[in-house]
Amino acid sequence: MPKPRQFEKPMGVRDFPPAFVSGKRWVEKQVEARFSAWGYREVMTPTLEYFDTVGTASAIEERKLFKLLDGQGQTLILRPDQTAPIARVVSSVLGGEPLPIRLSYHAGVFRSQEREAGRNAEFFQSGVELVGDGSPEADAEVVALAVECLQACGVRNIRVALGHIGLLEALLQEEWADREAVAELKKSLGRRNLVQFREKVRASGLPEQRQERLLSLLSLRGEREVLQRLRSESRGEESAAAAAHLEGIWEALEDWGVTSHVMLDLSLTGSLDYYTGMYFEGYGADRYYLLSGGRYDRLMALFGRPAPARGFALKTDRLVMACPPRPESREAVALVYPRRLHREACRQAQELRRRGNRVTLFIAESGFSPARSAGFDQVVEVREGDGD
Amino acid sequence: MPKPRQFEKPMGVRDFPPAFVSGKRWVEKQVEARFSAWGYREVMTPTLEYFDTVGTASAIEERKLFKLLDGQGQTLILRPDQTAPIARVVSSVLGGEPLPIRLSYHAGVFRSQEREAGRNAEFFQSGVELVGDGSPEADAEVVALAVECLQACGVRNIRVALGHIGLLEALLQEEWADREAVAELKKSLGRRNLVQFREKVRASGLPEQRQERLLSLLSLRGEREVLQRLRSESRGEESAAAAAHLEGIWEALEDWGVTSHVMLDLSLTGSLDYYTGMYFEGYGADRYYLLSGGRYDRLMALFGRPAPARGFALKTDRLVMACPPRPESREAVALVYPRRLHREACRQAQELRRRGNRVTLFIAESGFSPARSAGFDQVVEVREGDGD
Repeated sequence: MPKPRQFEKPMGVRDFPPAFVSGKRWVEKQVEARFSAWGYREVMTPTLEYFDTVGTASAIEERKLFKLLDGQGQTLILRPDQTAPIARVVSSVLGGEPLPIRLSYHAGVFRSQEREAGRNAEFFQSGVELVGDGSPEADAEVVALAVECLQACGVRNIRVALGHIGLLEALLQEEWADREAVAELKKSLGRRNLVQFREKVRASGLPEQRQERLLSLLSLRGEREVLQRLRSESRGEESAAAAAHLEGIWEALEDWGVTSHVMLDLSLTGSLDYYTGMYFEGYGADRYYLLSGGRYDRLMALFGRPAPARGFALKTDRLVMACPPRPESREAVALVYPRRLHREACRQAQELRRRGNRVTLFIAESGFSPARSAGFDQVVEVREGDGD
Repeated sequence: MPKPRQFEKPMGVRDFPPAFVSGKRWVEKQVEARFSAWGYREVMTPTLEYFDTVGTASAIEERKLFKLLDGQGQTLILRPDQTAPIARVVSSVLGGEPLPIRLSYHAGVFRSQEREAGRNAEFFQSGVELVGDGSPEADAEVVALAVECLQACGVRNIRVALGHIGLLEALLQEEWADREAVAELKKSLGRRNLVQFREKVRASGLPEQRQERLLSLLSLRGEREVLQRLRSESRGEESAAAAAHLEGIWEALEDWGVTSHVMLDLSLTGSLDYYTGMYFEGYGADRYYLLSGGRYDRLMALFGRPAPARGFALKTDRLVMACPPRPESREAVALVYPRRLHREACRQAQELRRRGNRVTLFIAESGFSPARSAGFDQVVEVREGDGD
């Protein structure tokens, strides 16, 4: 196998030039200010985790995990998301704190490349987890916070699609006793293959009227009227309870004043084996995908501290792209000095920096060309007698 | 092999609770403000690199590298430091920009655990690289910037020890033609084993007077007088040139007004095969080790863009520990509301947040106990009629 050449990087990873990094810093600053104002405390977890702990508990499929062996023969993974590691933290480091616990993060996450190129193997997420408190109000809080984060970043045409995996599963299970058939149907929904889902329902042997009812319920999209329809058509106990919970979330979102951004979508599915209640996705202009989140009530038990929980993750890379350009507020000054005037150059540089400028020093003798002045707002030349 | 239990993490990695993370954020903010004011632009590079590119070019010994195989059978490493990846960036992504180029970073780096426990496998560095411009002024700039960063973080008793690897090597090579003997002597110095170094010099067969001269030159520590002694005793062309360059750095540091923090130490050695000129280490009170840096003129050529270069890396984890505690400026408010008053609670929360408070909502019915008020500056109860 040929050795990689010196300028090459592994497949799917990226270098980030200054323009991206300053955009990322700005986004994280806006978002962190909102997280913090809403009482979420930032934590960090290691890049490396055990496959047998965080890896198996994660919402990310095993084939997408970056695996390696440690010196002791244990399989390690590069963290594929932050939710499972934070569940570990809530059960261990913060095990003595009472619930609910609100935590936030800004982190790089990893997904192993398969053959297809073009996917990022390492990308960035900013998000929160609210662990404990099973109320619809707590669910609504993270949705409202997600909207506020997008607003803080200047995203326009914010849309949040909100579904409920628990409701969806209850509706399916109330029609079919056959668990395998339900699992098959869930698979189609999980792949967002609604055509296949419809075909499977059609071929199910269910009376046509009940087929129709199910398909029409699951294709409901809209606002409050969706909830009214659900309430009037709820049959089983489980789906009625889930529908009531979803209604509670909607009402709490009205209290936050954000329902103008939210659309209910009962066919919306995240990872069906992971999320247990609400699931939501957020978009900017042109339906540009910016975040996802939801309720995961089974995860905490895997870490020995059973509790309802929910959170969301902003796709930071995409948010950087979606944000309007920001002018750099501080002036960039090129300070060009003849070598013998180094001391005076130092003095002027520090004075300009105190006034808030970004100052880069250049030795005049090395030939500071007019071409170098690109990227600077101002070129200042240090002259004999300047400091007198 | 037993599976790790759910709360376990791989050896040497850490969870970081909110107190550490807010400290780290504060340190990075102070440091980034200085980096930026001095004209350094932040870049990011991937966590994963090829062993054959960045791994072999890095100053970090191979046995300390975290290695894994990618799907194509290439050996990957987790980035052990930022200098080699940034050299790659300067040669590739920024290959079109004229030198000098000033870049900065804030990143996690990885060192493989050996048997001994207690070492961190993942830790944080903030640093700069100034690529191009071989002048002593450019060398002095990064030393002065390092001092300013420590000052910005409130570190007291800042001390910088400054040596010159090129000078040290020249002094050795001017005494011994035998390259192997010199390599042996360098090894002892590299391990900071001065006793062994002395013994090797004593056993070298060199005339006693020249032994004495060498040992006395290499044990020189102090300020300007060290340079005078060096100048008067310089014999070979190479050591004289290196001594003159070191004198240039010292003078430029005087221009920056930081020499009161700097002590010359000619026995100071970083990685001898990597650094080519000045090498420095920075300390806080009680000689608490906080940064290291130096000049590396051979690295850029490995990436196809030969150029003089230097930089430093702050040990962020240690800096967080060394910084004086900072009071949180924003008040943390627990807002406790009866469930039926959720809308009023939302209104009050948003109003308090607008005023700069951190507000956490609690449902009164879930039993907000006095114990929960720990960690909050204020507990506010939402009452009937509050919004009227």
